[in-house]
Amino acid sequence: MNINGKSYRTVWVEPAGEKEHLKIIDQRRLPFSFEIEELGSVDDVAVAIADMHVRGAGCIGATAGYGVWLAARESGGDREKLEMLCRQLLATRPTASNLSWAVNRQLSAIEGKPASRWVEITLREAGNIADEDCKWCQSIGRHGLTLIEEIAAGKPANEPVNILTHCNAGWLAFTDWGSATSPIYAAHRAGIAVHVWVDETRPRNQGARLTSWELANEGVPHTVIVDNVGGHLMQHSMVDLVITGADRVTGGGDVCNKIGTYLKALAAKDNNVPFYVAFPSSTLDWDINEGVGNIPIEERGSDEVSHIEGVLASGELAEVSLLEARTASANYAFDVSPARLITGLITERGICSASGEALRELFPGHG
Amino acid sequence: MNINGKSYRTVWVEPAGEKEHLKIIDQRRLPFSFEIEELGSVDDVAVAIADMHVRGAGCIGATAGYGVWLAARESGGDREKLEMLCRQLLATRPTASNLSWAVNRQLSAIEGKPASRWVEITLREAGNIADEDCKWCQSIGRHGLTLIEEIAAGKPANEPVNILTHCNAGWLAFTDWGSATSPIYAAHRAGIAVHVWVDETRPRNQGARLTSWELANEGVPHTVIVDNVGGHLMQHSMVDLVITGADRVTGGGDVCNKIGTYLKALAAKDNNVPFYVAFPSSTLDWDINEGVGNIPIEERGSDEVSHIEGVLASGELAEVSLLEARTASANYAFDVSPARLITGLITERGICSASGEALRELFPGHG
Repeated sequence: MNINGKSYRTVWVEPAGEKEHLKIIDQRRLPFSFEIEELGSVDDVAVAIADMHVRGAGCIGATAGYGVWLAARESGGDREKLEMLCRQLLATRPTASNLSWAVNRQLSAIEGKPASRWVEITLREAGNIADEDCKWCQSIGRHGLTLIEEIAAGKPANEPVNILTHCNAGWLAFTDWGSATSPIYAAHRAGIAVHVWVDETRPRNQGARLTSWELANEGVPHTVIVDNVGGHLMQHSMVDLVITGADRVTGGGDVCNKIGTYLKALAAKDNNVPFYVAFPSSTLDWDINEGVGNIPIEERGSDEVSHIEGVLASGELAEVSLLEARTASANYAFDVSPARLITGLITERGICSASGEALRELFPGHG
Repeated sequence: MNINGKSYRTVWVEPAGEKEHLKIIDQRRLPFSFEIEELGSVDDVAVAIADMHVRGAGCIGATAGYGVWLAARESGGDREKLEMLCRQLLATRPTASNLSWAVNRQLSAIEGKPASRWVEITLREAGNIADEDCKWCQSIGRHGLTLIEEIAAGKPANEPVNILTHCNAGWLAFTDWGSATSPIYAAHRAGIAVHVWVDETRPRNQGARLTSWELANEGVPHTVIVDNVGGHLMQHSMVDLVITGADRVTGGGDVCNKIGTYLKALAAKDNNVPFYVAFPSSTLDWDINEGVGNIPIEERGSDEVSHIEGVLASGELAEVSLLEARTASANYAFDVSPARLITGLITERGICSASGEALRELFPGHG
């Protein structure tokens, strides 16, 4: 997608001098400052993943893929060293399933191949991982676009389609296009008037910081609201469609996503607003059917609730405390929206209803 | 209620030297600094109300009552001057119905009385307004306490009753006790173990700042959560009871309250968690039956969304911007929770279901 008019991915290889260099968008200071970081070693990649210079399933997977390429380069053909470096990558964010998936895919790719070809093979395979991620997101956009086109067709020509989204399931969370945002970008580029209500998404404000930055760069009209507002907007017909991403989708169609998604799903149901969840099929967890009782919810550090980062009047980035010392805070990071609240699932293979039956029809061969 | 072990009201008169002095708790810097302000003139009172040194229906009403006392003192017995000063008070927050109610009550109290007695009468009547507000809140507490006692009786002795509240319907919004918090304080003082989940309540963070400060001072265990969390907690039986306040309750039992209340009401309904709304009957608007379509929702300045106040590591209070310049924000301040989502209403006269019929039974003589 575009940043200041130039097209980027979240992670890419740039030839320069005698060898290729791995580059990422360092997402930590967005939207206040846009920085490109060069990752010169496996150490660099491990820090970038662990300290969330990059985040989001697809983006982590692609970055880890390139990380194995750097590991192959550093290993000098020593299998033991390569595996040690891969373990270092795997330890950065143990619960990110795309991370282990990408590392294992790379190790399979060089299985039985001579050490002299590891670097060449892992670079190509890392590119394949990134390209596939991009292709899946584009397919999600193509399928989701039909929903927006349908709504637009039913509205007066001068009224935009109002779409609400929660958190950042945008291109920054993948290599390009994003999941929830992909249909929005597709519609905008197709000339359909869209306007996005962006939930700020406390505590980490990924909506206010990342989604709004993406949309501003693509020129998509958008308005940030606090997480409390969506229900009111839906009561007053100010939302035509909700699209969120997902961290995990069960085989029964329950959706685990950023905390607060469930509240928006309830409001959408209560007001007959279509509620769609967009994700590549790698997000599907066929081993679980019912989500609320079976998906463990990560409790993160309370400092994410008690402190917030922003920009002082001086332009300087600063963190302020929002609570006094006597007051504790808790930080549940995700929640589960039961399938009964979800209008449909948008995947790279098409749109289906949120049910085990419909999912298995789209993805045959599962349980 | 207690602040550092000493009992306070939000507004009070203190004899000192030759005449009484009007004091308020300046709520603007809470919880980071606790400041008592002396209001020496009608000008001072007008600034205190307009600039939100005091806020909340009951607290504004009581402060305005005392404001008319100061107006009587400043008028020197000149009726025209008194009325001019009262108009100054009324103009501070035109939509606060308790403000005009208190001013008009004071003007009625001196109607037909000699100017020489205005100061004495308005001081007594201001005290009555404040005392009544306190008494109503105490009654709300007594009635609401029965709900908490019932829940506590059904739980193991070592488990607290978990109560979720949104925004600040605490004693800072009244003269004492509060509405939503009054049953909680009553339970805590009765020795019942309670724990309060405090919604931070973006954008102005009245939960994180004011409710948590109140609870800390009373020694009530509490945990601040972001507004996205309540649904997840209810899905996992971590909330026994929701109590919120109300800015306006229709004759049909619909509740207009701080933005985001509706989302919590939906989650409570979806998880069979009792959802109660506590308010003195002055909050009832008998002229409106259905709330969602008929209550205009104030849209406040977007800077409340784009900027937030907190404390820097240096201890200094500072405001940071959360959005980049290209991104707009919108700030809808209230929403309406339909009566169908509300388990019951807690008033100074007792508890009733959220319906026009039940309300009219408790408050006979209305439409």
